[in-house]
Amino acid sequence: MNETPKFAVIGGGSWATAIAKMLCVNLGQIAWYMRNNDAIEHIKLQKHNPNYLSSVEFDTAKLFLTSDINEAVAYADYIIFAIPSAFLGGELQKLTVSLEGKVIFSAIKGIVPETSLIVGEHFHEKYNIPYENIGVITGPCHAEEVALERLSYLTIACGDEKKAKRMAKNLNSHYIRTKISDDIVGTEYAAMLKNIYAIAAGIAHGLGYGDNFQALLMSNAIREMKKFIRKVHKMKRNINDSAYLGDLLVTGYSVFSRNRMFGNMIGKGYTVKSAMMEMSMVAEGYYGAKSAHKLNSELGAKTPIIDAVHGILYEGKDAKNEFNKLTEKLN
Amino acid sequence: MNETPKFAVIGGGSWATAIAKMLCVNLGQIAWYMRNNDAIEHIKLQKHNPNYLSSVEFDTAKLFLTSDINEAVAYADYIIFAIPSAFLGGELQKLTVSLEGKVIFSAIKGIVPETSLIVGEHFHEKYNIPYENIGVITGPCHAEEVALERLSYLTIACGDEKKAKRMAKNLNSHYIRTKISDDIVGTEYAAMLKNIYAIAAGIAHGLGYGDNFQALLMSNAIREMKKFIRKVHKMKRNINDSAYLGDLLVTGYSVFSRNRMFGNMIGKGYTVKSAMMEMSMVAEGYYGAKSAHKLNSELGAKTPIIDAVHGILYEGKDAKNEFNKLTEKLN
Repeated sequence: MNETPKFAVIGGGSWATAIAKMLCVNLGQIAWYMRNNDAIEHIKLQKHNPNYLSSVEFDTAKLFLTSDINEAVAYADYIIFAIPSAFLGGELQKLTVSLEGKVIFSAIKGIVPETSLIVGEHFHEKYNIPYENIGVITGPCHAEEVALERLSYLTIACGDEKKAKRMAKNLNSHYIRTKISDDIVGTEYAAMLKNIYAIAAGIAHGLGYGDNFQALLMSNAIREMKKFIRKVHKMKRNINDSAYLGDLLVTGYSVFSRNRMFGNMIGKGYTVKSAMMEMSMVAEGYYGAKSAHKLNSELGAKTPIIDAVHGILYEGKDAKNEFNKLTEKLN
Repeated sequence: MNETPKFAVIGGGSWATAIAKMLCVNLGQIAWYMRNNDAIEHIKLQKHNPNYLSSVEFDTAKLFLTSDINEAVAYADYIIFAIPSAFLGGELQKLTVSLEGKVIFSAIKGIVPETSLIVGEHFHEKYNIPYENIGVITGPCHAEEVALERLSYLTIACGDEKKAKRMAKNLNSHYIRTKISDDIVGTEYAAMLKNIYAIAAGIAHGLGYGDNFQALLMSNAIREMKKFIRKVHKMKRNINDSAYLGDLLVTGYSVFSRNRMFGNMIGKGYTVKSAMMEMSMVAEGYYGAKSAHKLNSELGAKTPIIDAVHGILYEGKDAKNEFNKLTEKLN
């Protein structure tokens, strides 16, 4: 690999845009892939992504924009995937360039529907990427606050500490602080699970539960998350570190979280289908709930919150009844 | 003690009013002491506390209202103190009736300024109440949501499990669920410390930090709280249980928290004195910060958040500078 490795961002959404912004503070050039050619032309001319975080101005001289994922992958040594997990399979099918030797970072926070694997596992199992070349970028971090340059902390996990540090260094700035971790499995599962809990928080809000219950729900959620992740990958971790609890809180408490918003609509009586149609963005937790529930049928962790969300989203159960029952299981 | 013990609530504020409401669901009569005679007359005539949770209607036949604390104490076997910690010493000085044999529950969530002790310790050390007669009622529970009968969970801690269960039974209702605990020291310290963290959350908000930082701050706060409480009283406890983490979250995230509001004013540039004057209610965390900081000079836990709040409130340090420095210590 180059002494000064090159970076590519895959995705045109808000989190991809935030990551591109962060990298441009430190790097002379980055590749940035997005499917939408109109958006690329707009950025080139207007210096702003027309669809997401449109207040962010880019120094376009630093951007190698492309709508060909192969160009971006060929260009880079470090590739950051920041697209909805449901689209990952389709994007990867377009690849003709090899991923061998590339360092793959997931900023996706979801489960790949085709394989029911988190993104790191998916790359490891399907593309033979060794775990020392796999990393995770995780919050607590709403993209919208990156746009506003509000102080935010990221955790960068990678099987290879040096690569985590390299990524961290390139994301750091006066408004971004980074911390490295070796828990690539746990941080990625946490990032996925938190979306399900944010849906639960939204459902509770939609049903009329208040702040007292919300706090109780989050306190139960972090305990449930700990049990789940421990079953997946047992190692020494403090579940109250910012990558786990912090990420849960920013998603569960923010009215801007699309997962919470999706849950809120369900709680207010929308059907799953109509709530999906109302939302212009994908609620990762919708897919996450299915995968986590399925995975847990093997793991056997006690996960009443995930079970309730799954029941409502996939088994046609009534939200009010399910939450009534759930309240008896929490403490 | 009687087979069916009698209960008294000490205090006329919102939390005392909420507890009186909860008890009236289950008991034929309770004693309710408050200093304010006008409020007592208003409740007797209008069935509502004029000053706090005034939407709550009481069945006045169930209330033995008195402005003489000795009458309430003499009446009851279980006495629940729900007044600001700063007023406790003064109220107890009025006592001519003995507390011997009484079961004392603290719903105070603060430190007694005169002794720098939490309420349970204060009763134990100054009034020789044995720990099996001392208990704590803790949230996550905003009084305002009790008024609205929104589902809330309380933790009832007592050195004697039977007494915890007795109290729990009398607080339970269709909107209140209870859990018992034997951690009277830890739950009461948590209830006190969370107010300091809520002030920190308010200061951060007032200074313009966003949701990302808030989540990071709360994730650090619960780790700090764990270290602090472990130094005070080491025992097996899950700091993510609702009495600790849940209580922290409901206070730190709610815009209705007066501690958070107080912090917010400080963050926005009010002096401590003017913020205190603007508020009609006492921010327990103001006193808590002083006591916790002092206590920690002996305990030696690493508490950067408490230190920052203490520096701002008591050492004349600039909030912006202190939080700048604090951001370097969090992760």
